[in-house]
Amino acid sequence: MAPASSLGPGPSYTTTLRVEAPISRTLLADVASTVAGAGAVVIGMDLVDTEDRRATADVTLFARDEAHVQSVEAALAAAGVEVRHASDRTFLFHLGGKIDVVPRTPVRTRDDLSMAYTPGVARICEAVAARPADAWNLTGKGNAVAVVTNGTAVLGLGDLGPLPALPVMEGKAVLFRTFGEVNAYPICLDAATADEIVAAVLAISPGFGGINLEDIAAPVCFEVEARLQEALDIPVFHDDQHGTAVVVLAGLLNACRATGRTLSSCRVVVVGIGAAGTAICDILLGAGVGDLVAVDRHGPIGPACNEPHHVRLASRTNRRGVTTLAEAVEGADALVMVSRPGAVPPELVPTMAPRPIVFALANPVPDVDPFSLPEGAVVATGRSDLPNQVNNALCFPGLFRGALDARATSVTGAMKLAAAEAIASVVAPEKLDLGVIIPSIFHEGLHDAVAAAVMEAAVP
Amino acid sequence: MAPASSLGPGPSYTTTLRVEAPISRTLLADVASTVAGAGAVVIGMDLVDTEDRRATADVTLFARDEAHVQSVEAALAAAGVEVRHASDRTFLFHLGGKIDVVPRTPVRTRDDLSMAYTPGVARICEAVAARPADAWNLTGKGNAVAVVTNGTAVLGLGDLGPLPALPVMEGKAVLFRTFGEVNAYPICLDAATADEIVAAVLAISPGFGGINLEDIAAPVCFEVEARLQEALDIPVFHDDQHGTAVVVLAGLLNACRATGRTLSSCRVVVVGIGAAGTAICDILLGAGVGDLVAVDRHGPIGPACNEPHHVRLASRTNRRGVTTLAEAVEGADALVMVSRPGAVPPELVPTMAPRPIVFALANPVPDVDPFSLPEGAVVATGRSDLPNQVNNALCFPGLFRGALDARATSVTGAMKLAAAEAIASVVAPEKLDLGVIIPSIFHEGLHDAVAAAVMEAAVP
Repeated sequence: MAPASSLGPGPSYTTTLRVEAPISRTLLADVASTVAGAGAVVIGMDLVDTEDRRATADVTLFARDEAHVQSVEAALAAAGVEVRHASDRTFLFHLGGKIDVVPRTPVRTRDDLSMAYTPGVARICEAVAARPADAWNLTGKGNAVAVVTNGTAVLGLGDLGPLPALPVMEGKAVLFRTFGEVNAYPICLDAATADEIVAAVLAISPGFGGINLEDIAAPVCFEVEARLQEALDIPVFHDDQHGTAVVVLAGLLNACRATGRTLSSCRVVVVGIGAAGTAICDILLGAGVGDLVAVDRHGPIGPACNEPHHVRLASRTNRRGVTTLAEAVEGADALVMVSRPGAVPPELVPTMAPRPIVFALANPVPDVDPFSLPEGAVVATGRSDLPNQVNNALCFPGLFRGALDARATSVTGAMKLAAAEAIASVVAPEKLDLGVIIPSIFHEGLHDAVAAAVMEAAVP
Repeated sequence: MAPASSLGPGPSYTTTLRVEAPISRTLLADVASTVAGAGAVVIGMDLVDTEDRRATADVTLFARDEAHVQSVEAALAAAGVEVRHASDRTFLFHLGGKIDVVPRTPVRTRDDLSMAYTPGVARICEAVAARPADAWNLTGKGNAVAVVTNGTAVLGLGDLGPLPALPVMEGKAVLFRTFGEVNAYPICLDAATADEIVAAVLAISPGFGGINLEDIAAPVCFEVEARLQEALDIPVFHDDQHGTAVVVLAGLLNACRATGRTLSSCRVVVVGIGAAGTAICDILLGAGVGDLVAVDRHGPIGPACNEPHHVRLASRTNRRGVTTLAEAVEGADALVMVSRPGAVPPELVPTMAPRPIVFALANPVPDVDPFSLPEGAVVATGRSDLPNQVNNALCFPGLFRGALDARATSVTGAMKLAAAEAIASVVAPEKLDLGVIIPSIFHEGLHDAVAAAVMEAAVP
């Protein structure tokens, strides 16, 4: 597999270069061809000004990465075009943060103020004190989710700490609102241990109707989620685990439909048993997968396993007692990888059953090269620039919308299964025939379908 | 002083009654006169429907309190008008909460998503990890304030707990946004001790540019604020203390102007040395009041005082060594009460200097009856339905706006003095002559003036 950047220029490196050069009839065409010659994609060109026989123009382009932008600048300089300024649209998008906290009803007059704030608000406080359940109607609690991280596993970047995680948490808040009409607020915790995280979340919990845990490293994330869900009567959901697991199950359901399999007869191998891998195994077992082999860096998990977080899995998986990765993969119907490039040797994939189902979810570089798979393989990755992206954002906005609407007190297995089935159900049969097993996050009706299914599953 | 409700019907008890009665030419007039006869104020009347010779109408009215609404309903019933439904506009205002968390830039396409969230957001995380100060530009930290309470002193209602405090905190968030364009988010802490509050706020602090403490009971509030400001490099501000103190100083500055006094020559008595009273004494001493007597429930604080929170005050006040409240008030220029009705016997007020300045800030019932003061007195209260309301909302939106814009690392005495002077300065001299010493919260330019003054005072 080539490095990620060889997958080509894309919108996450959208840059606008302000360039200046002597006026000539072919200037804009020359700039465009120089940029294209350097391998970038021109997506816009605007003439800004002409003065003293020199022209200023803005050229907006997709590049592969920072180094690529610099090589484009060098190519322009070599062609006699001066680059005065490079502004990066991704950075501009984040400038000043990505969310605002705004009044639902404007306060324009003294009367409004008397109702929103003192003295009128005292009556609402007294009503909630008398009947705490009224907070679900009389305050924003019923639509508020805390997006909580300690920044120990930020995307694939590792332990950056709480503040560098804030851009991700704000991004999640944007998606919560855009796709689920949920008010999500980022809480970036300066907290290293499970005890500290649990204490902080319990302390802030009264004002929230749900807790979305995010980018917290394993194994702390397991303990934190379990302890919080035990202590709180609102849903607690570690998205890196269960969001991924729900979407993997959705994809697998559709991949089975597309290839004429049933989930219960499917032989599945999961490679990489961290936070996401553990949750994927759990949800697949819950959904009825009978023959599941979980593979960590030491090989297939079996009876001899003594890692505390794997013991529970060992007793429920590997019914055929395979002992090597090659043995596990041979004849398997589905291979779900949440590991790293190289963890599964590429030559093993052709030993799978015909029309294999391959999920290569490592990011940004998939575990195996998605372009070198056997004929007829059904493929999903974690990348937005390839088809069938396993994206947690397919799940969490609708899942929390449904849970909040049901006033759920936890996230149950039934709610997660319902979410997966709802995501799978929106892909039309004719799309399945084309190898599309996972819908776009912009698919009309997707998030509403997830919310409705989760709400129904949540109501006892 | 009569009970609060005798101050008359007002917008915090705005109720809409849906009424039904046999059609008659005088029906609406009869309903209006019945409502008015019961002492409520009709502010709107709409005919909704007529059917089967009966009419349905909505009558919207200001009442004094819940009991008053019920007596209006009884009067209507006695007049043959059926009340089908009473909806309370104050409750409607709070339904579903008062704030939303919304994207600053919409996410409409896959390109937007690639910039706002993965993969583009990874670049922003890495930039903040490399240069944490960039979080002030690349995230919302620089415009985010946590409005933190544990609900132990909610308005004047006492220790209701964190969840019943949420309506107030949401109201504050509304005012922060409306008047200061600050993104404030309510954090209602399940935390009883100073240690617990401090630990929780330190844990959540990375994502915020400021901390507004609110409705935390004394003396815990003093320790919490001091420890947090010591530990954090962002402004920490306990609004119940300093917001009140800033507005009191603003009012006193203007009251001195209106009555030809100077602050330094003013003899001031402060009655009630809790959270607000302590901060008022501090800011007045800092502003140059020389002759200040602080009076708690045991009388004027003096050298014999051994309450820990008063010792520091004792050494800086009561220079004439008065020992009784009557002695303190006699000849005083200004009497600032943050106590309760009855704490100061009404007959003491006439012993003050001519044209006395009287701030009776207890809520909802002022410490002394504002209608029974000597001729020429300049009066302020905490009530929105009387002139010269000492309202913290005059201060906190602009103060935090200025502090955030300056990237202040704390709230200094100079910033508080600047805020007070800015609030005082927007009242025009011709208004001072009419006894107006405190501007309306809707005064054009007020919050911008506070922000500009605080920002200038914050920059070293």
